[in-house]
Amino acid sequence: MAALPLSQASPWEAPDWLRARAAATPTRLALLFQGRALTYGELDRWADGVAHALAADGVGPGHRVAVLLPNSPLYVALVHGVARLGGVLVPLNTRWTAPERAKQLARIGPSLAIALQGPTREEAAALAPERWRSPSRLPGEEDVRAGERWPSFSRPPAPTQEPDPPGDRVQALVFTSGTTGEPKAAMLTFANHLWSAVASAFRLGVDPEDRWLSCLPLYHVGGLALVFRSCLYGTALVLQEGFDVAAFRASLEADGVTLTSLVPTMLYRLLQADPGPWPSRLRRVLLGGAAAPPELLAAALAARVPVAATYGLTEAASQVATALPEQVRAKPGTVGRPLLFTQVRVVDPQGQEVPRGQVGEIWVRGPQVMAGYFDDPPATAQTLAGGWLHTGDLGYLDLEGDLWVVQRRSDRIVTGGENVDPSEVEAVLRQHPAVEEACVVGLADPEWGQRVVAMVQVRPQLRVDEAELIRLCRRRLAGYKVPRHVRAVARLPQTASGKIDRRRVAALLEEETD
Amino acid sequence: MAALPLSQASPWEAPDWLRARAAATPTRLALLFQGRALTYGELDRWADGVAHALAADGVGPGHRVAVLLPNSPLYVALVHGVARLGGVLVPLNTRWTAPERAKQLARIGPSLAIALQGPTREEAAALAPERWRSPSRLPGEEDVRAGERWPSFSRPPAPTQEPDPPGDRVQALVFTSGTTGEPKAAMLTFANHLWSAVASAFRLGVDPEDRWLSCLPLYHVGGLALVFRSCLYGTALVLQEGFDVAAFRASLEADGVTLTSLVPTMLYRLLQADPGPWPSRLRRVLLGGAAAPPELLAAALAARVPVAATYGLTEAASQVATALPEQVRAKPGTVGRPLLFTQVRVVDPQGQEVPRGQVGEIWVRGPQVMAGYFDDPPATAQTLAGGWLHTGDLGYLDLEGDLWVVQRRSDRIVTGGENVDPSEVEAVLRQHPAVEEACVVGLADPEWGQRVVAMVQVRPQLRVDEAELIRLCRRRLAGYKVPRHVRAVARLPQTASGKIDRRRVAALLEEETD
Repeated sequence: MAALPLSQASPWEAPDWLRARAAATPTRLALLFQGRALTYGELDRWADGVAHALAADGVGPGHRVAVLLPNSPLYVALVHGVARLGGVLVPLNTRWTAPERAKQLARIGPSLAIALQGPTREEAAALAPERWRSPSRLPGEEDVRAGERWPSFSRPPAPTQEPDPPGDRVQALVFTSGTTGEPKAAMLTFANHLWSAVASAFRLGVDPEDRWLSCLPLYHVGGLALVFRSCLYGTALVLQEGFDVAAFRASLEADGVTLTSLVPTMLYRLLQADPGPWPSRLRRVLLGGAAAPPELLAAALAARVPVAATYGLTEAASQVATALPEQVRAKPGTVGRPLLFTQVRVVDPQGQEVPRGQVGEIWVRGPQVMAGYFDDPPATAQTLAGGWLHTGDLGYLDLEGDLWVVQRRSDRIVTGGENVDPSEVEAVLRQHPAVEEACVVGLADPEWGQRVVAMVQVRPQLRVDEAELIRLCRRRLAGYKVPRHVRAVARLPQTASGKIDRRRVAALLEEETD
Repeated sequence: MAALPLSQASPWEAPDWLRARAAATPTRLALLFQGRALTYGELDRWADGVAHALAADGVGPGHRVAVLLPNSPLYVALVHGVARLGGVLVPLNTRWTAPERAKQLARIGPSLAIALQGPTREEAAALAPERWRSPSRLPGEEDVRAGERWPSFSRPPAPTQEPDPPGDRVQALVFTSGTTGEPKAAMLTFANHLWSAVASAFRLGVDPEDRWLSCLPLYHVGGLALVFRSCLYGTALVLQEGFDVAAFRASLEADGVTLTSLVPTMLYRLLQADPGPWPSRLRRVLLGGAAAPPELLAAALAARVPVAATYGLTEAASQVATALPEQVRAKPGTVGRPLLFTQVRVVDPQGQEVPRGQVGEIWVRGPQVMAGYFDDPPATAQTLAGGWLHTGDLGYLDLEGDLWVVQRRSDRIVTGGENVDPSEVEAVLRQHPAVEEACVVGLADPEWGQRVVAMVQVRPQLRVDEAELIRLCRRRLAGYKVPRHVRAVARLPQTASGKIDRRRVAALLEEETD
């Protein structure tokens, strides 16, 4: 077959989806934030302004740009502006403490950090103060509204040593607690976002009039993914700065919302505040980020909330499997079948597929799986061994091929949609001179899904004030990681093999706090 | 950025979308035909059976399989089965005469032809009789319904000389009248179909419950594309053998149809038969294949038919630009903006972009543009020169960037959604010994869009019977190409430069037949 080589680039080679979207539907609503609306044409202009400003600050292709901001229209313009420039976005968790941020900045080495405040001493040690920029240095929403135009930004030629996989490019480093220890930076590519958007659209459906309400932070994959989805679909993102029950309900009613993403804690609070009915226009509530307790699903079904239960993770650019509302009603608890182009395998510790119905580790393969962890070849090799993403989460496929997740990563705690790695909290507790050993676990919690609690083993002859340990954690760790309760004991329970018996610790703490 | 190479294949490298779809939603409705329903799981099994049967007949990767069948579930299973096998589908126009088919079979050289009847003498000369197969040799719908299962088909290793563009593969050779002369075979790739499906979904919207009614032949790109779209979306294709007003209306009501594709002639007949109202579930009527006359659009709007006016062509795997119903109401006549990832340029004869509002040739670029014409490097080079598809169609972009098509390929005639190349008909007319020169043109027709008519210049001292010329055409050409009226004259009108004056011919014939 004498085919000429394809003359057309794939949509993710040097992608500029915002440019393509603005060409296709410039007057369509792109963004709604606190009652202020921006079209795709306006957002496109703004991204040009942002890209020029960043380029003037020395940011070039392949450079990393750290962003430490709350959700805002400017953040969305930054996501697109950095992409247009050929840079890599590094969204930082705003709930981290300065020491947590400093540690990650030192590892990532961004060219620039954009933050509301200048660096603390620790942060300045990790990234020189002259590399910090206030967002006020960038073109603002008011400039766009005033009709300001910037020249159409053309990306400078790529550096000669193109470091990314050919035909694809890293869009962002998104932090995840990984399977063990320190937060890791998942390298998400444009192809990851594209296939995630396509497969999600074909599962949930997409309508040109859709409006997707998001109160998830843009530094989480669930929030970030929506920026690209809405751009690719040509639909509107209704953005909130954070989650607030009243603001959420008001937006549902006022903004013509048809889709939204929630973590179970948010849905719990919404149902507590107001059992319904929810507006009929709302066609899907994507519920993910943590396993939804059965009582919560029951309450949601009773209130006729169109819950689409989903399983996803940062390393897979969000959705892996999703059950539509009718399936959630028929089989509450399942997250349904994997999306199109996504393969799921449930395996035993030897990596062998287990029979249907049997619990094992969930492995995922598909074009939305990350390129790897930034600057961490060992963790990448381990997590992507054999071409499959080893999620560390436990679950099973039922006889109909629907996925059930029974436990998120072995000892990871998910509280209010945030992931907490116990080992990170344990390391902080062990910094106290009187603490010999620490064990951090998650206990079931109706509102938060799980709450963080700890048991510490005190060194012989020493004593420790439990409240002081909590204060220590608060200084070093983001609030959601701080144990709600700490119990000091002479000796932590151990398994027969001499390891700390986490299940026993959890059972003891459960009794104690009940 | 130390990224590992992507371990995941793109969804169009060695794609098997039906396999992926059946894994994602096996029990969803794939196909509805004459009241009989097939799920994606069933269609997937059937495609396995078809692939095994073809492989047993010696069909291997890269082989071409000609199909000369009316629309049917088996045809759909063949589309998927040939793809699964790594073969190339060659759907033949069932309206062609045996000589027309023979000429194309000789050019294409398929390994196998699947047809209801054995070859005519001319066809047998082009493709040996032992290479013709009756569809009854393939597993049938009744076998699938009886629960028969075939082993999951694994494609044999590709031939060492992989002839297709890397990362992509030709799915079908689809015949088009091209810009001049003989029908050409556009090489459509899986990537073409994929991006067309994605961009179409983001323009029209997609709902998991969608049902797309198609009475377009599967040998046309508009019909063929729907097989892949519905498979990728996981939605149902409601297939009809052909267009029939009563059957169409009955299906609209009975089959829960939400989308359909029509050419203007079909819509004209539907509105003549029954002005409405149409079912409210029907959310879009994709109207394309030929320019829609203003009166037809007005009648459709009056009947509240949700017309989405589209411009597309075989060489771009169908849709290029589409106006949604609200835009058709506001601006009847426009086909709207190009789809996402599609670029349209309107140029002068020197290939320079003309100002907005000025008519020129429409050029198209995007990932849905064909890989080229089969075995025709000169036509490919000319049509895809500079990385743009030179459509030969005339149109303009208005100040808002919406496309208006003023004339399909300069002298191409579109009648009832079928393309007729005047030069092909003229060549047949010139075969008559008394005909010195011929000019075939299209005249506006309320039902057919255009009707084919001809004027011939008779050799000095000779005479010709006009009815005889029509009979001559009928023997050599598909019915839709045969002139409805032929006028013999002593001398064809000429332009100042001595060329045949096609406009004058059309004007004279218009007067004569009015």
